[in-house]
Formats: sequence, structure tokens, C-alpha cells
Amino acid sequence: MLRCTGCGERFPILEIRYRCDQCNALLEVDTDLEAMRKARKPSEWKELFQERLGHFRPPYASGVWRYHEWILPQIPVERIVTKLEGSTPLYSGETLRRSLDAPAVFIKHEGENPTLSFKDRGMTVGVSWARHIQSKAVICASTGDTSAAMAAYASEVPGLRGIVLLPRDKVTFEQLAQPIASGCLTLALDTDFDGCMRVLQEFCQRHPVYVLNSLNPIRIEGQKTIGIETLQQLQWQPPDWFVIPVGNAGNISALGKGLLEARELGLIDRLPRIAGVQVEAANPLYLSYKNGFREAVSVEAGQTLASAIRIGQPVSYHKAAKVIQQLDGVVEEVGEQAIMDAKARVDACGVSICPNSGAAVAGYLKLRTAGIIGRDERVVLIATAHGAKFSQSTLDYHRSELSGITPRGANPVQPLAATLEAVEQATGFVRTS
Amino acid sequence: MLRCTGCGERFPILEIRYRCDQCNALLEVDTDLEAMRKARKPSEWKELFQERLGHFRPPYASGVWRYHEWILPQIPVERIVTKLEGSTPLYSGETLRRSLDAPAVFIKHEGENPTLSFKDRGMTVGVSWARHIQSKAVICASTGDTSAAMAAYASEVPGLRGIVLLPRDKVTFEQLAQPIASGCLTLALDTDFDGCMRVLQEFCQRHPVYVLNSLNPIRIEGQKTIGIETLQQLQWQPPDWFVIPVGNAGNISALGKGLLEARELGLIDRLPRIAGVQVEAANPLYLSYKNGFREAVSVEAGQTLASAIRIGQPVSYHKAAKVIQQLDGVVEEVGEQAIMDAKARVDACGVSICPNSGAAVAGYLKLRTAGIIGRDERVVLIATAHGAKFSQSTLDYHRSELSGITPRGANPVQPLAATLEAVEQATGFVRTS
Repeated sequence: MLRCTGCGERFPILEIRYRCDQCNALLEVDTDLEAMRKARKPSEWKELFQERLGHFRPPYASGVWRYHEWILPQIPVERIVTKLEGSTPLYSGETLRRSLDAPAVFIKHEGENPTLSFKDRGMTVGVSWARHIQSKAVICASTGDTSAAMAAYASEVPGLRGIVLLPRDKVTFEQLAQPIASGCLTLALDTDFDGCMRVLQEFCQRHPVYVLNSLNPIRIEGQKTIGIETLQQLQWQPPDWFVIPVGNAGNISALGKGLLEARELGLIDRLPRIAGVQVEAANPLYLSYKNGFREAVSVEAGQTLASAIRIGQPVSYHKAAKVIQQLDGVVEEVGEQAIMDAKARVDACGVSICPNSGAAVAGYLKLRTAGIIGRDERVVLIATAHGAKFSQSTLDYHRSELSGITPRGANPVQPLAATLEAVEQATGFVRTS
Repeated sequence: MLRCTGCGERFPILEIRYRCDQCNALLEVDTDLEAMRKARKPSEWKELFQERLGHFRPPYASGVWRYHEWILPQIPVERIVTKLEGSTPLYSGETLRRSLDAPAVFIKHEGENPTLSFKDRGMTVGVSWARHIQSKAVICASTGDTSAAMAAYASEVPGLRGIVLLPRDKVTFEQLAQPIASGCLTLALDTDFDGCMRVLQEFCQRHPVYVLNSLNPIRIEGQKTIGIETLQQLQWQPPDWFVIPVGNAGNISALGKGLLEARELGLIDRLPRIAGVQVEAANPLYLSYKNGFREAVSVEAGQTLASAIRIGQPVSYHKAAKVIQQLDGVVEEVGEQAIMDAKARVDACGVSICPNSGAAVAGYLKLRTAGIIGRDERVVLIATAHGAKFSQSTLDYHRSELSGITPRGANPVQPLAATLEAVEQATGFVRTS
């Protein structure tokens, strides 16, 4: 069943529906935890999930479908479209821990997914569902990562058309290349992300296309597995905190839903806290948090290098506000300088992240300074996309070419003559003979 | 031990040495297959490798270190630097098989590694070895992927310095961003790749830096696992062919070494054949193959969109020639148009590959047309890097902006007004109400 996150009204899951008839709130999948509890004890679920790690076979080798009983068991295995997404690493190397002065920090690197962002986890479920309900077209509005993922999954399904609405000139060209290369119809609209969403909503009310933005409750189910898989990697010993960047607020909602369900299933014995991080240029959830979630704030999103979270009216606002309260969470905001310096700091430890993930790291550091997160606490920072999608801003940073930013971690390339002497001079190696 | 691939002379493995004193040929690791055969039966090795899949724990969760007894067992587990590289997918979706008209084709996507290329498999071994022998600095000359990988692994080791020599203005800026971001000293030399190699060789003869180019026999051991892991994924039923792009010829050598050893260990009961694919602009191995490997040809490498294999004097020529002969192999060459069209064809099936991988696909198609590879044969195409590293040429292709190329699979972005009507017109959805 689908359940309204506002009034609790319920709808059959096979109906194509994104909002409640009664109150217009978003819907969520009402996972049948009771059935799971009856089927297996917590220790038996843990054994099953662990056993499925041991094979290359689809779909259970996927870090999403490993948890299929928990993630849309309504989809028959033979309809699943998977790229064996997930099973992403949890980085905690020595240079990283030193650089962040954090002995128990982990980076869950969702950039190491097939299309290089966490969106793959949702899309494997969303596109499988589209196939299951025999949809002929899927659509999304996207600042980049969503469209890349939707396009790549849709193009694995014969006869399924993908349509992408992008804000013109507001995504990196690396991100633009992905849906085009995957063969989707890619439309660049003269507006911003919120404008794309408005057109999309008008369009999908009139035409039989399946919407795969994060308002889609089915897709969110896949994204739950970021937290669930992290718990499994930590052998079901929950960390003290998850820190996650927030744009449209779908991912923090999904993370929260997964953690709460894990607790209800008895897989963990206490709940981690959760910190959402926004950019100053697009901080509506932060402002709402500051007013105690008494009212939803919306803003006009300004320029930010973290283009994937440049969103002024988060579609999953209410879901996010709810899980933040349930998980004793906080919301922080960070500026452009802090984002890019934090990204550089993590990059330099051999973990290449995007500016949005840089925001999560910067938010973590700010919460450390404020004493809200302690130095020794076990913290999982969620990196949402791979740095390779943002080569231009990375290079510009290291060349000191980002306006308004003084790069504290700049490491520019050095042009040099092609001689032994030049290399010796540049490296400081002195010839002894 | 290290063994000379020319005269067979042997050297202690702990000596830092890349070539033979006697005959100047490259060295290779003399894997102790006898010890492996004594330790376990083939079925027991298979069980062990399968069992190790079932955990997230480093190092055995890595697709390289899963085979540690086979891959530098001399490195103690605690010295291993791993990003859990490998375990890359073997794509064989319906749209892909249809598009290539190949019912039993697989793409082994090495682009889905931490730094987005197959080089991670070699670098986890090379950098672990550098740490084991207490090296203070590692160096490589690189067209991009090698430096990205070396930098990312080196920056996980406290006190290990990374130095990168790049040919100035001859790598994509996506590739340039990687070593810089990882904090390596990145030197852009006024020369081509071969020129960088010359300076590097002079430099490393005089200074105590550990060279991590593919002439390094230790690194090659890690790359062996591309083929080995593929065999495991195919449940040790070898395919008829492996098809692989060839630049410096280290990777084809590594692939061949792994396959031959798998046969010697009794893990497979017959050998697959092997096809190396070069670009017309840089085809020395192809020319040597055509003369029956009677003499090594070198060429001056010309412009190619497959910049990672723009190499005129492959350093691993002799190793490659040997494994091609041992595996009843062939070498093919392909042009720029074929490369980019083949890349677009695979991209459009939701599998994002680089132009070098496009060369492998184009070579496969050419060998199919020539009747050398049959339609129904089981073929593994090795994709060496992720398409995301080559967004510029991808976009230029779809915009019809690559000179000399008529894009057969172009899918340009469509700029559009932000209205319902415009989207209806572009998608062909007609309003019924």
C-alpha cells in the first residue's frame, strides 16, 4: 500500500499516484514490517543479507536488491533492472581520519555507483517498477544526477522511453553528457530546477508517463538502502551520526525511513542521529529547522557550486522534517568557500567527491566546532556523487579561478620543460653523481 | 622472484628493478603456482574465492585481494592499501545484446572502479608494494588514468609522495583534475607520452623513486585479476574471446598472464582467445602483428579521441606479443569514426564507456564482419574506463562537433521554452482533453 505522509490515507500500490487526493501531501510505501517480522528473526535476516553478498548473480548481488523483501517485494525478480548498484565502500583511511582529526569517521561513497551517484539506488527500483506496471515512458526533472541515472536504467529496458527536463545552462556539461549518451530525449528548459518541476507536474497530470523524481515514493524505497547497507557494513552497530547533504530532501527522508524501519525490525538496538546540510545559497530546510519546523520556508535558490542541491522548494520537505524530528536531528548550512575547501581536503586523501558531498563534510566540521558532534563520535558522512562529474570546478579551484574563493588546499599543475633537470628542480631531488 | 621475459634471468623480488641487466627486457613476477597447487585443489581455490565474496572486510572484499595467494602473497595483509577495487559488473543486458546483435556478449566494465578505470587494480598492488618496501615516493608518466589511480592510492599512505608526469595539453581536463585533486605533484611536460616516459626513465635511474608505470612487474600482477575475476563471474566457464584495447600493452599482457596461470592451476580447462584492438593513429602492435611479430614496429602516435591509448612505442611490446601468440590471438585496428559510433551504441544501452573502450567494441564488430569472431561466440569486451571521464568528446559527438566524424548515433540536447505546450510538442504527447 501507499500511505499519505500527511493525513494517513491509504492507496493501492499499483495506482500511479504521487500525492494524496485529500491533503496533497506526498505518499510513502507502507513497508510490511509485520510480514518481515513474522518471516524471520532479526538474526536470520542478518544471515540472509550476509549470505547474499557471496554471489555475483543479479539481482541479489545488488546493494539494493540484497534487501528485496524490504524493498518493494511486490516487484517480481524477473522484472528487476539492475546494474548491481550499491555495495559502495565505507572509507576510513588513516590520511582521512588525520585530515579531519576524527578517529571514527567514515565516508559512505555513493559516487562509486554505476552512474556515479546515489540516484542509482532509487532508479533501479523506479525503473523496475515502471517495467512492472508496463509503463511506456519515464520522465524526470533534474539538476543532473537524477537524469543520468534514470536514462541509464531506462535504456536497459526495450521499449521504455526516457524523457529528461533539465534547467538550461545550470548543470555541468559532465552531467549533461550522461542522459544524452544514454539515448534519452533531453530537453533543456529556459528556467531553473523548480521551473522544470512545475512543467513536469503539469505534463504528467495530462499524459501517461511515469515520474521518477524524488516525489516518487517507489524510488525512495531504493534509496533507503544507503543507510541499511551502511549498518550492515558496520555489522549492525549503528554510528552516532549520519551526515547528509540536502537539496530536494528526498534522500534524507529515505535515509531516515530506512533507519527507523531497521530499528522497528530489531536489526539495530538504538537509532543514530542525523544531520542535514544545506548550502547558504539554497537553505529552505535550514530556515525551517531554525523556526522549529513551525512553517515550511521556501527561497529562490542562488548560485552555488553544489549545483545538485540548488533547490529552493524541497519537494520532500514534510517527509524530511518528520524524520529529522524522529531521529533527533539537526540541519546546518555552509558557504561556498567551506564547501570547496572541505571537498579539497577529502579529495587529497584519495577519495574523490563532488561539491555537494563537500557540503556534508563542511557541515560536519561546523557541527564539530559548535560542539554538537563530538570528536570521538562514530560518524558516517554520505558522499552523494563522484568528483569526476565536477572536474571543471575542481580544476578551477586548484587554479585559483573560482570567484570569491581563496583555495586553502590549492595544488595547481606545473607546466615544465621535458628535461631531467626541470623535473629534478620541481621535485627537489638532487643528483648525487 | 622476478623473471626476465627475454632471457629468463631471475632476480630477487625485493630489488627495485624494472628491466633485465643482461638483455634489457621487461621483468615479470614468477608466480609460485607450484605452491598454490600444493596448498589447495582447484575446487578448493574456487570455494575460497567464492567465500571471500561474502564479506565487506578489507582486503579480501577487494576484487584484487580476493586472490591474494595468487597476487603478490609476499605483501603482508596489514600493508595493503585498498579501496575495494574490482568486483566490477559484467553487463549483458537485452538492449546491449540486441544493439550488437550478439546473444552472448558481455562487457566487463572496469570503469566502475574507484578512480573510474582498470588502473586501480594495478595501483592497489603497486602502492601496497611501495609501502611494503618503504618507498618514500612513487612516480608515473601518464595519459591520465594511470596518474589518477596512482595519486588516489598514494594519498592514502601517510608519508608517501606521489609525482605525476603528464604530456601537456594531451589529456582531457577531467583526467587532469584527478591527480591534482588527490594532492600529487603534477608536472605537465612539453612533450608527448613517449617523451614523458623518456624523462621518467632518466629520472628514476638517478633517484630513489618507485616507478608505477606498466613496465612495473608488480603492478601488472594486480591487473591480472580483470580476467581472473571475469572467469569467476562466469563460474569458471571461459568465454571464447576476450577483446581489449591496447595502448602501452601492459593490460593485454596482464590479462594473458592471468588466463595462462588459471589454466596451469586447473581452474579452467581450456584457454580463451584474445583480441587486441588499436587505433589507426597509434597502431604499432597491429603493424607488428601483421608482420607476424618478426619485428617490433614503433610509430609516432597521431591524434586520436582514444587519448589513453595514444602510444607509439608500447613499453610491454614483447610481453604482449608473447601472450597473443600463446592465446591464439589477433590484433585489429579501428578508425575514429568507428570508435565513436561504437561508444555511442554501447552508451545508449545504459553502459557508459570511454573512447578507448569504444575501440574495443569497434574492433569486435570489425572482427565479426571479417568472420574471425562468430555471432554466437561468448565474448567478453573489456571496457577500461568510465565514460564520465570523457564528457567533452561525448557531448561534441552528439552535437556533431567532432571534425571528420559524422555521428551515426547523435542524440543532441533540445533547448526549449519552459511551457507545457513546448514539452508536449517535443515529446509527441497530444492533449486529449
